[in-house]
Amino acid sequence: MKIYLALLGCVSLFFTAILKAEIVSSEKTSGVELSADWRTPKAESVLLMQLDSGRVVIELAPKFAPNHVANIKQLVSDGYFDGSKILRSQDNYVVQWGDPDEGTEQARSIGKANSKLKVEFFADHSELNFAAIESRDAYAAEVGFVDGFPAASDGKRAWLAHCYGMVGVSRGMGDDSGNGSGLYVVSGHAPRHLDRNVTLVGRVIKGMPLLSSLPRGTGDLGFFESAEETIPIKSIKLATSLGDKSVSLQIMDTNGAAFKEHVAKRTTRSEEWFLEPTGKIELCNVGVPTR
Amino acid sequence: MKIYLALLGCVSLFFTAILKAEIVSSEKTSGVELSADWRTPKAESVLLMQLDSGRVVIELAPKFAPNHVANIKQLVSDGYFDGSKILRSQDNYVVQWGDPDEGTEQARSIGKANSKLKVEFFADHSELNFAAIESRDAYAAEVGFVDGFPAASDGKRAWLAHCYGMVGVSRGMGDDSGNGSGLYVVSGHAPRHLDRNVTLVGRVIKGMPLLSSLPRGTGDLGFFESAEETIPIKSIKLATSLGDKSVSLQIMDTNGAAFKEHVAKRTTRSEEWFLEPTGKIELCNVGVPTR
Repeated sequence: MKIYLALLGCVSLFFTAILKAEIVSSEKTSGVELSADWRTPKAESVLLMQLDSGRVVIELAPKFAPNHVANIKQLVSDGYFDGSKILRSQDNYVVQWGDPDEGTEQARSIGKANSKLKVEFFADHSELNFAAIESRDAYAAEVGFVDGFPAASDGKRAWLAHCYGMVGVSRGMGDDSGNGSGLYVVSGHAPRHLDRNVTLVGRVIKGMPLLSSLPRGTGDLGFFESAEETIPIKSIKLATSLGDKSVSLQIMDTNGAAFKEHVAKRTTRSEEWFLEPTGKIELCNVGVPTR
Repeated sequence: MKIYLALLGCVSLFFTAILKAEIVSSEKTSGVELSADWRTPKAESVLLMQLDSGRVVIELAPKFAPNHVANIKQLVSDGYFDGSKILRSQDNYVVQWGDPDEGTEQARSIGKANSKLKVEFFADHSELNFAAIESRDAYAAEVGFVDGFPAASDGKRAWLAHCYGMVGVSRGMGDDSGNGSGLYVVSGHAPRHLDRNVTLVGRVIKGMPLLSSLPRGTGDLGFFESAEETIPIKSIKLATSLGDKSVSLQIMDTNGAAFKEHVAKRTTRSEEWFLEPTGKIELCNVGVPTR
């Protein structure tokens, strides 16, 4: 619902009530919200990050980064992130978290997890149910969605795209310098130049504002400069460890009819408010509705 | 400088120091920072928004929206925004401000300003020094920069583009329902579908984090639901009213050699950190360096 309301944007406060009523009514008559159009994320692929301010829900993408996802789940099972910190908040870019002592003698143990993993970018296009959208993309020949995740492709290989809310694995130099003990989420305009350069492992499906509205770090790259500045993470748990009811939200099936209609609406912008509807759409402007 | 550092993104905390040193040194040797490559915004086109948390600096774009810019300057001269409020903060979209009582009996007087203005989108391409960039854009045939502002074009008409930090005029239904008494700034992924649908009047050139990191509004569209939730604006002043020294920052000249090199660097991503440099760039990922 929030996604639909966002279509309206930029109306003056004075007109909000009128426009809102209009959109809600057009949504009701569309009649596309069949239960078959929605899916509940599998609990085994869902992480719950608990902050003092609330809960952030992350859906993992094992099809694209199986080794990283397995490693992150191992770390999470071992409580690696419980009591860890948000370390960085860079305006219009990313929010990053992990162990503030990583690389020092005080570093947390990563237990049975792998300390190095080779980057994982690609899945075989022919093995995916790639829901392509019509869009002239700056970075890739084809773009669309795979299982709710924004993705790009050259026709043979497919890879996840750095849209707002996508979660990736921090790394240093080299293609095996990350392991999932440090993670980040895109909190600004999509930095698509990072596609195929950093391993993406999932997407925040609820609670993004808790991360995106954090104060920006005062250090270079938005790193928090002092222990006081960092934000505590109470815990990151697997949804499976908290019972089935821990994932109560649903995500629109990006291979369903309702999503096709959603993309069409976001492309045509036929609402009366628009003076010159664009008729175009860009991958990271599509958004995947949740309820 | 911050823009260059941002190139690095997503490095683990452990590696930050190393990478940072590398980039700074490559910047020093590039030797492109000639004073001719930078410009100081004209004080008559600069607004200073004073919040409790600090100052936001906005450069206006009279070439594209002369009537709106004149009207906004009139409102600002009359103190219209002094003591006004930030009314809305919608995640990954916009922050909007103005008179919370607009449309009611308690509304502030707009004085000599026009109460209605027809939307202003276009400038004549042939009369602009349009610095095009090579980019396959989802929304327009040509994209680039005009006087530091991201812009798009069909070859004949040019218009401003809704990149992060761009400032626009809130409007209701119809093409003359805005006047500049309500303004918004793009605080998330570029909502380019708003191009040619809302009048853009300028760009935040300093202080964006003060707006983008505000708590999100709890109402529909991110509107603040109560007077307590709204954020006070102490004042919005013309830089000319505060003396020449009020604008101390410089912006890279988007028609200069340094900017050409900046775009090339952001496109090629030849730093060692990148495994598979993209070789592509998208308009709103270019960024215009300030110092």
